[in-house]
Amino acid sequence: MNSPARPRAEVNSPARPRAVVALGGNALGESPGEQLANLRAAVPALVGLVERGYEIVLTHGNGPQVGLINLAFERAAELGITPAALELPECTAVSQGYIGYHLQQSLQRELHTRRVARHVATVVTQVEVDAGDPAFSTPTKPVGSFVSEVTARKLMEADPSLTMVNDSGRGWRRVVASPKPRRIVEADSVFGLLNSGFIVVACGGGGVPVVDDGEGGHTGIPAVIDKDFASALLAEAVDATALIILTTVDRVAINFGTPEQIDLAEMTVAEVERHTADGHFAAGSMLPKVTAAANFVRSAPGRTAVICGLHQAAEALAGTAGTMIRA
Amino acid sequence: MNSPARPRAEVNSPARPRAVVALGGNALGESPGEQLANLRAAVPALVGLVERGYEIVLTHGNGPQVGLINLAFERAAELGITPAALELPECTAVSQGYIGYHLQQSLQRELHTRRVARHVATVVTQVEVDAGDPAFSTPTKPVGSFVSEVTARKLMEADPSLTMVNDSGRGWRRVVASPKPRRIVEADSVFGLLNSGFIVVACGGGGVPVVDDGEGGHTGIPAVIDKDFASALLAEAVDATALIILTTVDRVAINFGTPEQIDLAEMTVAEVERHTADGHFAAGSMLPKVTAAANFVRSAPGRTAVICGLHQAAEALAGTAGTMIRA
Repeated sequence: MNSPARPRAEVNSPARPRAVVALGGNALGESPGEQLANLRAAVPALVGLVERGYEIVLTHGNGPQVGLINLAFERAAELGITPAALELPECTAVSQGYIGYHLQQSLQRELHTRRVARHVATVVTQVEVDAGDPAFSTPTKPVGSFVSEVTARKLMEADPSLTMVNDSGRGWRRVVASPKPRRIVEADSVFGLLNSGFIVVACGGGGVPVVDDGEGGHTGIPAVIDKDFASALLAEAVDATALIILTTVDRVAINFGTPEQIDLAEMTVAEVERHTADGHFAAGSMLPKVTAAANFVRSAPGRTAVICGLHQAAEALAGTAGTMIRA
Repeated sequence: MNSPARPRAEVNSPARPRAVVALGGNALGESPGEQLANLRAAVPALVGLVERGYEIVLTHGNGPQVGLINLAFERAAELGITPAALELPECTAVSQGYIGYHLQQSLQRELHTRRVARHVATVVTQVEVDAGDPAFSTPTKPVGSFVSEVTARKLMEADPSLTMVNDSGRGWRRVVASPKPRRIVEADSVFGLLNSGFIVVACGGGGVPVVDDGEGGHTGIPAVIDKDFASALLAEAVDATALIILTTVDRVAINFGTPEQIDLAEMTVAEVERHTADGHFAAGSMLPKVTAAANFVRSAPGRTAVICGLHQAAEALAGTAGTMIRA
């Protein structure tokens, strides 16, 4: 069950169930006050998992937050407040500090209230992607502010690495690649902390996207990594038994939003593939979740994944809520 | 040497020297490019310490960075880009993600180049302060943008918790308290990672200032914690043998900036007290450094502190550079 090259604390030999729990960035809200309120509402279910004996790693999205952070620094640079804008890798690192702080603080309070003796640590996480990932030749993820077509063309001329597109008729906007995560650079930190009994917050916003710099180090690259794919990869890296993807709907559905909608209590990996081929899952929304879930389940025997509402993690693992994905 | 209540990995029993190394925020520069360049120049000396057998925790200031972050979000909220400004605790958390990412990445590259097998982890750190700290009744630390006296008075009327003062005739500006750090909330995370052989980045910007919420949890409070005081407290908490404060001057001096300036190769704690009483150290500059150094040295036998230039950590510990503070 354990990756052979890595030492594992003997105390953990009678393996406890271990889960990576992914929170959607949209569920966090946009203002600091909203985020703190939403997290305080979300943590009881997470501490519930710990009380049931789970070791947990929390990951989170940052879609709305990283967009606002990027815009704020873009405008600050234009206004001369800051000497330069912040590129996407730095914006993701910023969101990890910001969201990690709130998540950590909310968890610590809930743990204390329920007398659960666990420490919480937020780890700044880089995630390596392949510089040759085909996603870089077809960027799709919109970030930053809307500009006119004239401005967009000028910006692209000045910096040929930029891709700007007309975003749903609302104006032109920069799009960046969403490459596949290849390696969690800080996986050993997360693994070590888990083995020492910590609740770990990691891989925020899918992780800071970096590429191998050819000298054994890494360099940030403007991209956005899907947090569900990163979470599945992290779950593999830390030998998790479960991947729990928390979202705004209670169950995965086929024929979503039509009179024929069917909410699914479970799916096999083969069913995920069939429904995906039939176009049941929206790109950028349910598709990455079911794909990440299936990837994780396929990665080794005995691994399960669930997709469920924000407060249903424990029920979903018990099979009474959410959608369970099985081999 | 070890705090008795805390378990310590047996592997560390033949104690290795352990140092907390504090980097000044001013030494990092203001733009992301500058910061990365400065950190790349700073890390060889840090990895040098690791090669000499030291376990290290890196802390860093965030003075210039947190000011820019605060301003950027203040302006973004005014312009309606973000739904709310970011308060100081969140701005500090943001700076921990931002600076931690660059520091971690720079260290990892240098470690790889020099074939030193160590992992690096950045831990988001909260630092508890006392809500009754007298610093809260006399805020002194300027943050945010300059405004007119009229605007300043209006803002204070609208929010009586704000203090705004005329900052050296350049305009009115918000000032916040700089309370004493009382407890490093994530000390156990740092301690555990160190015991597992990690290089840890922690307590960025002096830590996110929080107060006990009376229910066993913490709440952020608008304040700025001096990073040297927080570093000294962290050094005590993790049983460090040395506190190394890196700064922009090579040695502590008395009669600084006068023809009678004397650079000091060492000082006893008693000499620190005498020179402080004689007004040799500037508040907000050298004073917190020498005070933090003396506090740490006084905290237990066998502890030393050095204050030195950015690249001189190893030489300073060997006594050939910087200023050593001894009992």
